[in-house]
Amino acid sequence: MTAPANAPLSSRGRLAATLPVEQLAEISALFEFRRTGYSLDAPFYTDPTIFKLDMEAIFGQHWIFAASTAELPEPGDYVTVDYGPYSLIVLRNDDGGVNVLHNVCRHRGARVLTKAAGQTGNLVCGYHSWTYSPEGNLIHASAPGEAKFDKNCFALKKAHGLEVAGLIFVCLAAEPPTDFYETAKIFEPYLAPHELAKTKIAYQQNIIEEGNWKLVMENNRECYHCDGHPELACSLFPTWGLTEGLIPTHLEEVWERNKVAQSDLEARCDRYGLPHQVVEELDTRIAGIRISREALDGDGESFSADGRRLSKKLLGDLRDFRLGRCSMHLQPNCWFHFMSDHVITFGVFPINEHQTLVRTTWLVADDAVEGVDYDLDKLTYTWKQTNIQDKAFVELCQQGAASPAYEPGPYMKSEYQVEAFINWYVHRVQEHLA
Amino acid sequence: MTAPANAPLSSRGRLAATLPVEQLAEISALFEFRRTGYSLDAPFYTDPTIFKLDMEAIFGQHWIFAASTAELPEPGDYVTVDYGPYSLIVLRNDDGGVNVLHNVCRHRGARVLTKAAGQTGNLVCGYHSWTYSPEGNLIHASAPGEAKFDKNCFALKKAHGLEVAGLIFVCLAAEPPTDFYETAKIFEPYLAPHELAKTKIAYQQNIIEEGNWKLVMENNRECYHCDGHPELACSLFPTWGLTEGLIPTHLEEVWERNKVAQSDLEARCDRYGLPHQVVEELDTRIAGIRISREALDGDGESFSADGRRLSKKLLGDLRDFRLGRCSMHLQPNCWFHFMSDHVITFGVFPINEHQTLVRTTWLVADDAVEGVDYDLDKLTYTWKQTNIQDKAFVELCQQGAASPAYEPGPYMKSEYQVEAFINWYVHRVQEHLA
Amino acid sequence: MTAPANAPLSSRGRLAATLPVEQLAEISALFEFRRTGYSLDAPFYTDPTIFKLDMEAIFGQHWIFAASTAELPEPGDYVTVDYGPYSLIVLRNDDGGVNVLHNVCRHRGARVLTKAAGQTGNLVCGYHSWTYSPEGNLIHASAPGEAKFDKNCFALKKAHGLEVAGLIFVCLAAEPPTDFYETAKIFEPYLAPHELAKTKIAYQQNIIEEGNWKLVMENNRECYHCDGHPELACSLFPTWGLTEGLIPTHLEEVWERNKVAQSDLEARCDRYGLPHQVVEELDTRIAGIRISREALDGDGESFSADGRRLSKKLLGDLRDFRLGRCSMHLQPNCWFHFMSDHVITFGVFPINEHQTLVRTTWLVADDAVEGVDYDLDKLTYTWKQTNIQDKAFVELCQQGAASPAYEPGPYMKSEYQVEAFINWYVHRVQEHLA
Repeated sequence: MTAPANAPLSSRGRLAATLPVEQLAEISALFEFRRTGYSLDAPFYTDPTIFKLDMEAIFGQHWIFAASTAELPEPGDYVTVDYGPYSLIVLRNDDGGVNVLHNVCRHRGARVLTKAAGQTGNLVCGYHSWTYSPEGNLIHASAPGEAKFDKNCFALKKAHGLEVAGLIFVCLAAEPPTDFYETAKIFEPYLAPHELAKTKIAYQQNIIEEGNWKLVMENNRECYHCDGHPELACSLFPTWGLTEGLIPTHLEEVWERNKVAQSDLEARCDRYGLPHQVVEELDTRIAGIRISREALDGDGESFSADGRRLSKKLLGDLRDFRLGRCSMHLQPNCWFHFMSDHVITFGVFPINEHQTLVRTTWLVADDAVEGVDYDLDKLTYTWKQTNIQDKAFVELCQQGAASPAYEPGPYMKSEYQVEAFINWYVHRVQEHLA
Repeated sequence: MTAPANAPLSSRGRLAATLPVEQLAEISALFEFRRTGYSLDAPFYTDPTIFKLDMEAIFGQHWIFAASTAELPEPGDYVTVDYGPYSLIVLRNDDGGVNVLHNVCRHRGARVLTKAAGQTGNLVCGYHSWTYSPEGNLIHASAPGEAKFDKNCFALKKAHGLEVAGLIFVCLAAEPPTDFYETAKIFEPYLAPHELAKTKIAYQQNIIEEGNWKLVMENNRECYHCDGHPELACSLFPTWGLTEGLIPTHLEEVWERNKVAQSDLEARCDRYGLPHQVVEELDTRIAGIRISREALDGDGESFSADGRRLSKKLLGDLRDFRLGRCSMHLQPNCWFHFMSDHVITFGVFPINEHQTLVRTTWLVADDAVEGVDYDLDKLTYTWKQTNIQDKAFVELCQQGAASPAYEPGPYMKSEYQVEAFINWYVHRVQEHLA
Repeated sequence: MTAPANAPLSSRGRLAATLPVEQLAEISALFEFRRTGYSLDAPFYTDPTIFKLDMEAIFGQHWIFAASTAELPEPGDYVTVDYGPYSLIVLRNDDGGVNVLHNVCRHRGARVLTKAAGQTGNLVCGYHSWTYSPEGNLIHASAPGEAKFDKNCFALKKAHGLEVAGLIFVCLAAEPPTDFYETAKIFEPYLAPHELAKTKIAYQQNIIEEGNWKLVMENNRECYHCDGHPELACSLFPTWGLTEGLIPTHLEEVWERNKVAQSDLEARCDRYGLPHQVVEELDTRIAGIRISREALDGDGESFSADGRRLSKKLLGDLRDFRLGRCSMHLQPNCWFHFMSDHVITFGVFPINEHQTLVRTTWLVADDAVEGVDYDLDKLTYTWKQTNIQDKAFVELCQQGAASPAYEPGPYMKSEYQVEAFINWYVHRVQEHLA
């Protein structure tokens, strides 16, 4: 957990500073008069200026989930991560740390690395071969006769990177919010036993949803729509998000089964020393979090039709398959499920006001063998189906928000986490504008 | 002909109220200084702000042709109709009336119905199963533990619907212009004998034209370009729109044939008690109309190469095939041809400032059997060809309007209906802005 | 070289006159505070308002390369040329001159000619058959009964055309810059011996590059990136743009070979009376130019892998194949290579702020026979490959400019022609705004 020195971005990216006063006042009013407990006004989902503000105030100022350790295990491994107008290189350096560099050559602005992931030594821009060290320093610009050319002034711009318990986060702010370190201390003990550093990528899926990134996040934060996820509901109790007294009649039987399973899981966790308490600070801190360990239905092992394991190899030093799911929600762009046999990470990368990339990655033990220890189609089936369904839901909402007949609707009690996300979002932008 | 109670839209859709004063002044000036007798200035065809104004002042305030009775004959039948930012559900209710509802769930804004047409009982949103009666009332929101949740506040927003002589119109205004009822009284006697309620859809074609909706309408309102419609000119006299004294030499023979045919048709109509007088109030009323019954060339029965019938079944209680075409133009978005053997409806649905959906529907007697009474390819041939040609014309004009070299050109005498449409449009928007 | 009478465009196309004062001030400041020796700020590559300004100040005011004589050899031959919002007809008239007309019908604004190239007598608009003479005069508008319709008021709008040494240029300005005539006098003696009027099109390629037109031009103006053009580097010495003292070690051997070849070429040119001096006035005149005759590697004849001829027929009255390349750069939108056996013309036609059409045309002697005198794949191989590579470079820069991390980078000494192009551009726009 080290935060590298920061080279602050040029101020060109600063929208709030450059918006005409009236337009800024209009946008501020939209935030101020937001009706608590209701979905946002339409412009939050459709307006390109508010999207730019989101990129500045949320994605430009907070810690953003970028990748997992397994995506860049060895020195020289890298991924490129794009969101909004940004393109970043996330690179494993020789010391085992992570460097985060803006993927923009300092000569003529070309993208330096053009692939989604790969292996590299120095970074060589394909245009004029300007060559940067893995730290971003310009070490070779084969410019004939430029004796006085000062290479020190032309390093790739840097951003911050943090690797915690096998998850890699980046931050573009000059001074990243330090509150994240506390959040990291909260979730590290839950994740550590799964040892993400000893996993490998079984599969990665990128889907573009035709919807605003906030609709993608809102959709993730409730299970009120889980009737629309028949595959998921086999193992994830569809009472998720409900509490005693809120259970509808048709779910009462499930609720009883859930309670027994949860009780059994907690006893099991206590036996192994695995934390399982719910921590929920979704809108009460800058790095909002919810983490818990919850029972799965059926055999209680994994996201399969009968709850049985999907990979035969236990992760890390776990000694039992029946550990349900340790699920984590972080603001603003990710969620995770950690099972005993595999892990799924979800990263949300906005493209523009009406398109969002959702990247889902399935991780298994690094010594698990495809076809022997796990069947790839079975491993990915539940969440591939669920993602397709969620994409459709998000897109219906994006279409609806375009209509002048749309007006903010009330969140239900079981949608309190959606409301928490929106609260968090509104307050974070308001603080930025202040 | 019943106008349902209206739930006015949120004022969010109101552009004129929210445009900066200078921009509104600039747009108003474009309307004010419009040169009569000439096509519109380029921004009317290319500017997204003027498109929004069109959606507000024209499509948000007037009666819009949506569908014909044959598209939703039975209780529970519905179509969804989209234009500009709107999506509407048009539904046959149990009393045989038509309900018009905004297709936006009151919970999180999802589109409630996602198909172009279908059959439904209650309307169930696919996201969280909020369930509305066919009247739009929220009757079931399975929100666990929400005892105090007041369903009455969350009905689907309503719009107005009117069904006249087998045609269904919708209006989004809080107070629809009542002048339409007079227009309906004008056209009802012409259409009634064709008994649209006893027709069925033989074919429906949706084409997207890469042009502003006004160019689509302008193109429909003149036959000066009919040399570009060789198939249509077989049956539709290409002297359409001309009057004595305007006939060019090469059309003189056609004009004589037309006069004889028209005289014969009128005698025939008088015999059957069918109205045939031209009524033309295209820009002299809010619900602008032109209706007439005009002879067809050749056998004078239908839009075929030789003017012969295209379906063997007469419509309604008609007793003669040789009835030419009863043609109706309505402002702002439709035209129709009623023949003895089939009917064609044309609906124009703007998408954005440079794209427009044109929906053409061929209706035949509900007991006509495809392959026996009519051949589908022959039935639809003339207007499918004509639509393709018109699409090309519209698109050439849209491209031209983009050039700074474009300037409004003069309408010819035979284009007086184009001018009437433009006059109507300009005055309706100006009244809205006033 | 005749400049036709001009019908100035309507002022609707004038952006600078209509931009709000503040926005104009902001854009002017971007020009004023441009850092010399550095690439432009991001908005120059990404902002649609600056693109409109480019179309007005650069493409609306300067001589633009449109086509070569071989594309319209006979009276009635025409090409249509589109850039930005404009569409132009470039037509060979009966006197052998070139007419340039706006491709916008004066009636309803339709595109008059819809093909990229063809043969025509009078110009007949496909919509209502308005018919114009090759000079653009309206000679027939078959409008019934329009006795008083004054055709003289509705000629197609004209622009200026110039044909010099087989190259055709157009200018939309009311008063084209006369400085071009001096530039033409400079390049005419270099080009004349190749006799473009006696060539034919062997192949024409249109590619759309996803980048701003200025990035396309910048990329053309340096060979610092020529390591990325392995096919081109076989014949074009990759020391291009360098001078004594700037040669990097790995190019020293090539440089020596280049000097010998250049010396041999100049002696040869002197023998035949062919001019070969470098004239370089890229940013010191309105019609900026660089022209030179430079040696090619290998056999020194053409752009092949071994420098050997690609067509067996010499152009014009040339008597030797080994004449290297006479290369010409003109501001703002073209470059050319004239070899003894073929000519390649490159025209850059902006589409919008992030898309540009690049049109490359290969010309050979009009009596050269494909398959006998030249192999089309071999003739076009080197530059087809090079164009694909350049397209990729341009697109990487366009992507990079979108990032807030982009900031203008320094041009190297070998990029002095890029800097000259940018200087020229900045000063031309500033003069227009003044």
